[in-house]
Amino acid sequence: MKNRQWILVKRPVGNVDDETLALRSAALPELADGESLVRNLYLSLDPTNRVWMSDMEQYLPPVALGAVMRGITVGRVVASRDPRLSVGDAVQGMGGWQDYWVAKAGEASKLRDDGQTPLTLYLGLLGMVGCTAYFGMLEIGDPQPGETVVVSAAAGAVGSLAVQLAKLRGARVIGIAGSDEKCAWLVDELGIDAAINYRSEKVHARLRELAPHGVNVYFDNTGGAILDAVLANLALNARIPLCGLISTYTATGRGAGPANYGALLVKRAMVKGFIILDYAPRFGEAIAALAKWYAEGKLKFRVDVVDGLEQAPRALGKLFDGSNQGKLIVRIAAP
Amino acid sequence: MKNRQWILVKRPVGNVDDETLALRSAALPELADGESLVRNLYLSLDPTNRVWMSDMEQYLPPVALGAVMRGITVGRVVASRDPRLSVGDAVQGMGGWQDYWVAKAGEASKLRDDGQTPLTLYLGLLGMVGCTAYFGMLEIGDPQPGETVVVSAAAGAVGSLAVQLAKLRGARVIGIAGSDEKCAWLVDELGIDAAINYRSEKVHARLRELAPHGVNVYFDNTGGAILDAVLANLALNARIPLCGLISTYTATGRGAGPANYGALLVKRAMVKGFIILDYAPRFGEAIAALAKWYAEGKLKFRVDVVDGLEQAPRALGKLFDGSNQGKLIVRIAAP
Repeated sequence: MKNRQWILVKRPVGNVDDETLALRSAALPELADGESLVRNLYLSLDPTNRVWMSDMEQYLPPVALGAVMRGITVGRVVASRDPRLSVGDAVQGMGGWQDYWVAKAGEASKLRDDGQTPLTLYLGLLGMVGCTAYFGMLEIGDPQPGETVVVSAAAGAVGSLAVQLAKLRGARVIGIAGSDEKCAWLVDELGIDAAINYRSEKVHARLRELAPHGVNVYFDNTGGAILDAVLANLALNARIPLCGLISTYTATGRGAGPANYGALLVKRAMVKGFIILDYAPRFGEAIAALAKWYAEGKLKFRVDVVDGLEQAPRALGKLFDGSNQGKLIVRIAAP
Repeated sequence: MKNRQWILVKRPVGNVDDETLALRSAALPELADGESLVRNLYLSLDPTNRVWMSDMEQYLPPVALGAVMRGITVGRVVASRDPRLSVGDAVQGMGGWQDYWVAKAGEASKLRDDGQTPLTLYLGLLGMVGCTAYFGMLEIGDPQPGETVVVSAAAGAVGSLAVQLAKLRGARVIGIAGSDEKCAWLVDELGIDAAINYRSEKVHARLRELAPHGVNVYFDNTGGAILDAVLANLALNARIPLCGLISTYTATGRGAGPANYGALLVKRAMVKGFIILDYAPRFGEAIAALAKWYAEGKLKFRVDVVDGLEQAPRALGKLFDGSNQGKLIVRIAAP
């Protein structure tokens, strides 16, 4: 059996290009005691992947040059010397951008494989994505009924759940997204109160109209100009869960910081950065709640599947030009 | 009786200059029912005064052009039609930059006048200044024993209390100030662990040496380049009480924001802006604690008194060129 692997060969400057990663074939090693061999089926593509490729300061070590690109996968065990895993088990973990993954003891988590839950859901609603929206919005943002909540990258995987969780809390929700199609989906399908297309509308002025009493919670996925526009429209005691800064991930130098930072003082606002791995001990609580709301029809989740491991680098670009429609996943093999 | 008053006649661009304020004399009006007449004795000068002179977005209405400049004063009641105040009472309030203040009912708070506590202390340790350091450091910053705490403008009124409160908590404390004299005072007199002169030293590099495991709490009085240097040296889960942004108060345009803002995400840090007026219902708790520590010799407080109401505009400049030594107060009349 051959194992195709995407190797990080050059740290990208700006967008990922053809020189960033190389697809190579490697032989599969013998399993040592405690290891298992996982056939990767689905690979999650996330904005943070671009950070891992860089050597900027980050929350995990950067992927080393010459190493397999890091990524979260769902797969099935095809051989096991780990007594806790059997052939056929569906598992999840940091399986990497490759066909097969040699998981050391404890690295692969067994999934509930009831034949009804699509495995892709574990890379979205019932995985890190869902947990990110859950803890970021409900714990850090903590919207109250009637408050005004704004979410950037609102049609993305995390954003689309964050807006729905805020609606479940009884807040007025405004989503910011990058196309009229996404804005229409947010309002018509997810039922949020208003959406702003940041490519064609002036975010600052539109927020002033849509949130005349100010923004109580801003779930920030982007940073950049959108953050500045929201800072200029904060309500007193606003909370800003800082989830991501995608507008800065492909920057080559240090960009300027938010010019309206001073609004944090005037409005007694709070910014709290968070990394979902810190909440790992509480994932069970979040996933149980999300699964229940999903089963009750209270949450919708859209998946954008790209076929073929060989497409992974190009597919990642969709997160940065905004052309993905929902959670971006690469199908490596048929489930 | 004549009442000299500093009138705001022009919003300053950059530093306050001779055209910003005009000293005029006004007759004293008759007191209406419920009003009292207060002889202002001491005027507090604070960085936020410069914000009140501008029309930038702020937490109180800007001082109107043509109005008496707003300021906190301590004084004595010289006439009263308020049944709760008697002639001779020592009071505090927004008495303004003037000799006499006509206080409406409820505007002047009676002070404990035991003949031992210098009245100037109510404009510092036992007033808003003390409360600002208390809630900002102990509640928002919440330093734990052994953690590393950094305070900017550390030799200033609020900063010098903030560093001492962090020491009382058992933290390692690094102060940032603008002269060798101030740095020596912080280390030798207040007993903090280290001080950095930001005018002659590279703050980023010195922090890396002094706080190799990162900064757990940063009490920010300044914003600007010092904030960026601290952001580059944060520990995981850092807390940043945002008390002031004095580096930006005389800026003419919107400056750039903190370039290292992204560290908030990577380090899962929190920034919380606060305005001390929001804590008014809890001032008693803070002042009781501060008074106790002061009586026990655990807190030191330095006052920089400038003589004469006519000196107020020039004296305010000392806060911006860093030449004040401790809490800056104008003595309007002998107590």
